[in-house]
This record gives sequence, structure tokens and C-alpha cells, in this order.
Amino acid sequence: MAALEHEVLGKLRAAMRRAGYDALVAFSQDNVTYTAGFLVPSQVSNRFRRTITILAGDSFAAQIVVNVEENLARQRSRFSDIRAYNQFTQDPADVLADTLIEAGVGSGRIAIELDYMPAQDYIRLCERLPNATFVPCRDLYFDSRMIKTAAEIAILKEVGELTDRVVGEVLRAIKPGMTEKSVAQIIGNKMLEGGCDGLKCQVGSGIRSGITNCTPTDKAIERGDVIRVEILGDMKQYRSNVTRTAVLGKPTQEQQDIWEVMIGARETCKQMLKPGTAVADLYRAYVKYLRDRDIEPTLKFLGHGIGQTIHEEPYITDTRTVVLEPDITCTMEPLYMIPGRMGFHVEDMYRITPTGFEAITGTITPNDKLIEIG
Amino acid sequence: MAALEHEVLGKLRAAMRRAGYDALVAFSQDNVTYTAGFLVPSQVSNRFRRTITILAGDSFAAQIVVNVEENLARQRSRFSDIRAYNQFTQDPADVLADTLIEAGVGSGRIAIELDYMPAQDYIRLCERLPNATFVPCRDLYFDSRMIKTAAEIAILKEVGELTDRVVGEVLRAIKPGMTEKSVAQIIGNKMLEGGCDGLKCQVGSGIRSGITNCTPTDKAIERGDVIRVEILGDMKQYRSNVTRTAVLGKPTQEQQDIWEVMIGARETCKQMLKPGTAVADLYRAYVKYLRDRDIEPTLKFLGHGIGQTIHEEPYITDTRTVVLEPDITCTMEPLYMIPGRMGFHVEDMYRITPTGFEAITGTITPNDKLIEIG
Repeated sequence: MAALEHEVLGKLRAAMRRAGYDALVAFSQDNVTYTAGFLVPSQVSNRFRRTITILAGDSFAAQIVVNVEENLARQRSRFSDIRAYNQFTQDPADVLADTLIEAGVGSGRIAIELDYMPAQDYIRLCERLPNATFVPCRDLYFDSRMIKTAAEIAILKEVGELTDRVVGEVLRAIKPGMTEKSVAQIIGNKMLEGGCDGLKCQVGSGIRSGITNCTPTDKAIERGDVIRVEILGDMKQYRSNVTRTAVLGKPTQEQQDIWEVMIGARETCKQMLKPGTAVADLYRAYVKYLRDRDIEPTLKFLGHGIGQTIHEEPYITDTRTVVLEPDITCTMEPLYMIPGRMGFHVEDMYRITPTGFEAITGTITPNDKLIEIG
Repeated sequence: MAALEHEVLGKLRAAMRRAGYDALVAFSQDNVTYTAGFLVPSQVSNRFRRTITILAGDSFAAQIVVNVEENLARQRSRFSDIRAYNQFTQDPADVLADTLIEAGVGSGRIAIELDYMPAQDYIRLCERLPNATFVPCRDLYFDSRMIKTAAEIAILKEVGELTDRVVGEVLRAIKPGMTEKSVAQIIGNKMLEGGCDGLKCQVGSGIRSGITNCTPTDKAIERGDVIRVEILGDMKQYRSNVTRTAVLGKPTQEQQDIWEVMIGARETCKQMLKPGTAVADLYRAYVKYLRDRDIEPTLKFLGHGIGQTIHEEPYITDTRTVVLEPDITCTMEPLYMIPGRMGFHVEDMYRITPTGFEAITGTITPNDKLIEIG
């Protein structure tokens, strides 16, 4: 792990220097985890418990945590300089201001997560450090995170392959009368048995397949239902995202026709999935393929980067300027919802290689046919 | 549900009027869910997808959601005025500014979640509405949420009783050699089968029982281990929080002695658990009981409010000024960690009644003895 640690911190410091920033400050779960190398448990569920990482200059590195997490942070953070605060008596923004002063950048140019840090902390920081300049670090972080290291790719493959296997096993196990929640439970067990630390899943059947983010319910799956299963795995702080659509019984001609258009669009996009392709062009090719066949895509993106968060850069959409590079990892997810009737969705994970792409998922559970169950 | 809806919105508007605010704006998952009556799925895991509720004056009510969630919001929000934005081309802070102007409060006194909203949105809002005044609404929301309605209490009892039952069943099922993760998996299945929509749990055994927030691992549970199991249930947008400590085998005298002090402290506090008690006094009584017996409490609080979030007001600690009132729901959780050796923790949920308290949990799985397994 030591090599990975250096690589990530080295990348961040180099990006910081290139941009002319004196310090880099992260507040969000994903950027703090990326920087410090571990996820602070209570940051996930408790809005009062800030965790903040600070890099400054060539060597300063510190992490602020709530005192409840101090012991764990001392064991698991990449940083040896851990600063704990009492959630009831101390303002973490003051601890941050003190830390920046100590690092010698109290009047510097500080790249900080303005898109995530609470307004209250920003207001306090401006009071405490009136000569500092605060600039957003959103793009710096996403650009660094977008290109994965070998160690990161290895974990994404591990969690991706498990998810790819589980989605197929689960779809094959569906019988008429099973509820969406019971399908979700089978997914949960298989993912945890397979080594995941956690997961989310969406299961929508019948007209519920036409809801984009479809939380499983007690609805029983019936013959003729379209079933959409999306699995979001969580392993060693990295994520997977795989979706399949199936029909319990024989698909109708309309369903087959829609499916073929979606797969045709994806195959067209696969040919463009290589270094040098602008993600905006990839998205436009996808939209054109669908519209030429009278289908209006439901989402305003074809896919998204995947790593420590499910959605990260590059979003594959026409408002992004990213050009694909080797070791970008992303999903492509053609999705078409007919609200009140049914929905279709197929999603896999890809890695850009020097000459094209490698499919991280889709090699175990086929992703070309509309799956027929029973 | 209609009655509950009116009650919550009525409470919020009354609090807003009393404080002299023209509008009340929520950004956080818990306050948006409380206000709008449903949890927007993608708000949970995606930092780019803001959801914002706006109440203004006597009748204005609107909810801003990312376009991906528009259909679901139209089905499930309490508000009929749903405003969707495109995450790639629109700034939700602009949609919020437009909404506040339309509501006639663009130059008003706006109570807003400064402790949660991203700094970037605050900066944009200040640009767009230079004559508005922004004040924090943290306390307004927590004060409203602290006193539960009958409908809220009914759900808390439902999820609490399930959790109380499951924690006992799981502890009784532990055998030497089982891993912490397999215990977590049993908990997950039982909670979901019991009707939960989701859950988290912590399982720490042996020296890992001495880690405060203890994610389950592949460690096998061995004879002589202290085992700490904490379950956090999630049902109909309300939460449970129950913890038990057990020993696989016979507790040592030291373990029994520590346990007796913790239970003694809790029983002392139970006598004070009634309307009129200041939470600061409750905390001080707890700390005094422990210190008089040479135990330094690990946490700086004895418990916390529980409702739509696991941790909410009132925190039972000496930095809070809340005085208990009927229909406050909270936990008490004596906790003592000896890092590197073992940890002890017992947590239950309580409701304050007009004359004292009602135990929401602890009636199914006993919480007085240090549980012996096997």
C-alpha cells in the first residue's frame, strides 16, 4: 500500500503546484478518502462530524477528525499528523484555520472544496484568514482521480467481476411471486459473501422498471414483467455499477425492438471508446443513434467515471470537455424509461487502454440480449 | 398521512413566523426529508444532486430536485410545486434564487442551512440576492424535529422493537469461529425480513470491541471475546439505534465490575429521564457516577435524539441547553472503550412522557446483564 499512498499524494501535490496553489483542502467523503486512504466511518452518516485533509507545500499533510474517530484515524490514515476536535466545544473551521496558519499558508492561495464544504465553515474561514484566497478544487481532484493507478484498477476489477457474476445469478434465480425486496436480499447476501463491504441495489419490476432510481418494494414479480436490476458494490473503498434488464417470460416485439436500438447505440459507442475521443462526441453519437430511431434518451449522460464514488468524472455528456485517456474508468449505461409502462437499462464498467478499451464487466453475465427468465 | 403532513409543515411555518423569518430553506437529507415527506434517492449518494425545499410566508412551498428525480418527486413529495434542474447545464443555486424571488422574499430574511449548504451555493445566492439576509436555521429545524408527532412515534416504535428483537436473536446465534461479517449478514437479513428498508451495523469482537465505530471484518469470534453489536435500522425514513455487549463464555470479574458501573450510571440517569430535566444535568450525573468509580467516559455525550437521523437533538451533553419535554425521543448509551483490550456499550431508545419515560427498546432483549453466550 505504501507505493499507492505515495502515488496519490504525489499526483495531488504535483497538480497543486502546477495550478499555483499553496494548499489543497478536502471536505467530502470521496476526496478525503482518496487523500487520506481511509474512509472515516462517522463521516458517512453524521453531518456534525467533519473530516478534513490539508496538503500544503512539498511536505505538510494533516487530517482533522472528530475526537470519536481519533484512534481509528491514527491507525489507518496515511497521515501521521491527526488533529482531533470536540464536536460540542470546538468549531472544526477554527481547527482548519489554525492548521493552515501553522502550515504557513494563512495568507496563501488555498484550493478548497467550495462545492462541498458547508457555507458556515467558509464564512468562518474568511473571518479567520482575511488575507487568504479561496478557490475551488473540484476539477483538480476530479482530474487526479479520473486516471486510475494500477492498484485502483485491480480493486475495480475485483468488485466489478463479483457484481457481474452476482447480477446473472440473481436474475436466473427469479421466480414468479418473488418480491423485489427478496431479490434485493439475495443480491445483498451474494455481494457480502463475495467480499463486498457494502452495497446498494435497485430492483424495479413491471411498471416500476420505468422509475429511474427504483428502490425495491414488496411488489411481487409477475409473469410478463420487465425487471431492471442495478447493483452498486462497495469494496475496499471502490465501487462497482452494473445493470441488467430481463423479462419474466417472453419479451414482446416492442420490447425487443427497443432493446436492439439501445444495444446498437452502445456498440456504436464502444467503437469510439479509446484515447483521443471527446466524451461530448461519445454522448452525441449515442443520442444521434437513438433519435435516428425515434427514441429520446431518458438521461442527459451516457455514463460516468467510477472509482471511489459511483458518479465521478468523466461524465459522458456534451457539457464536459474531457478527452479520453488510458486508465480512465467509466460506465456506459443506455437507459430508456417509459414512465407508467416499463424501463430498459444496461450498464457496464470499462477501462480505457492505450489502444481502445477493456470491459471490466459484461464478460460473465452477457449484456447484449434482453434476458429471458424461465 | 395527510394529517402528519399538515402537522409538520404547520410546525415549521409557526416556528418561522415566531422567529421573524420570511423563508425557510433546507438542503440536508434529513431536513429535506422531514419537510417534503420523502427521501430523494440520489441525494443519498451523489454530491452533485441537490434537493432543496423552500417554505415562504403562509402558503408558498416548493421543492427543487435534479431532473432525474422529477417523476418520483411528483409522485411522492408533499409539495405540488416541483422544480427540476439539469445537473449539467443549470446551477441549482440559481433555481433557488429564482424561486425565492418568485415567492416574494428575494430581499427578505431567509433562514437557510448554512451548516450544510455548499459554500459555492451560498456565494452564488449572495450574488443573486444582494439585499437578502441569510441566517442559520439549524436550531429551528432541530427544535421542530425534536418533539415527535404521534405518527413519528409509532414508526420509531415499530423499527425500535424490530431492532430490539433482532439484536437478541443474533447474539444467541453466535458460535465460536463465526466471523464478524457473518454476524453482520445475519443482522442484515433479519432486519430486512422484519420490514426495514435498510440498516447499518457494527460488530466488534475481542480487542476490536474497543473501537468506537467498529465496521465488521473477517475476524473470527473466539471464546473469551467481548462482542459489541450495534444495529442502526432504517424504516419508513425513521431510524433505530440499539447496542448490546456480550461475552462468548464467562465474563471475567473485571468485565463484570465495569458493566455494573455502566448499568448503575444508566439506572441513575433513568430516574432523571422526565420533563423538566436539563440534558446537561443528565450528562453530568452520568459522568459523576462513572468518575466516582474511577471510570472516565469515552464519549462526550450520554445519548442523542433519534428520528429521521440517528444523531439529532437533543444531544445529552453539558454543552446543550435543552430541557426535556414530552415526546422527545432519544437514546442513552453508556460506552467505555479500553483501546487495544475491549469495549462496553449498551444503548436503548426512550420516549419522554408527561411523567417520566417509556422505553422504546430494551423490553425484548434485556439490557441489564452483560450477556453470556454459550
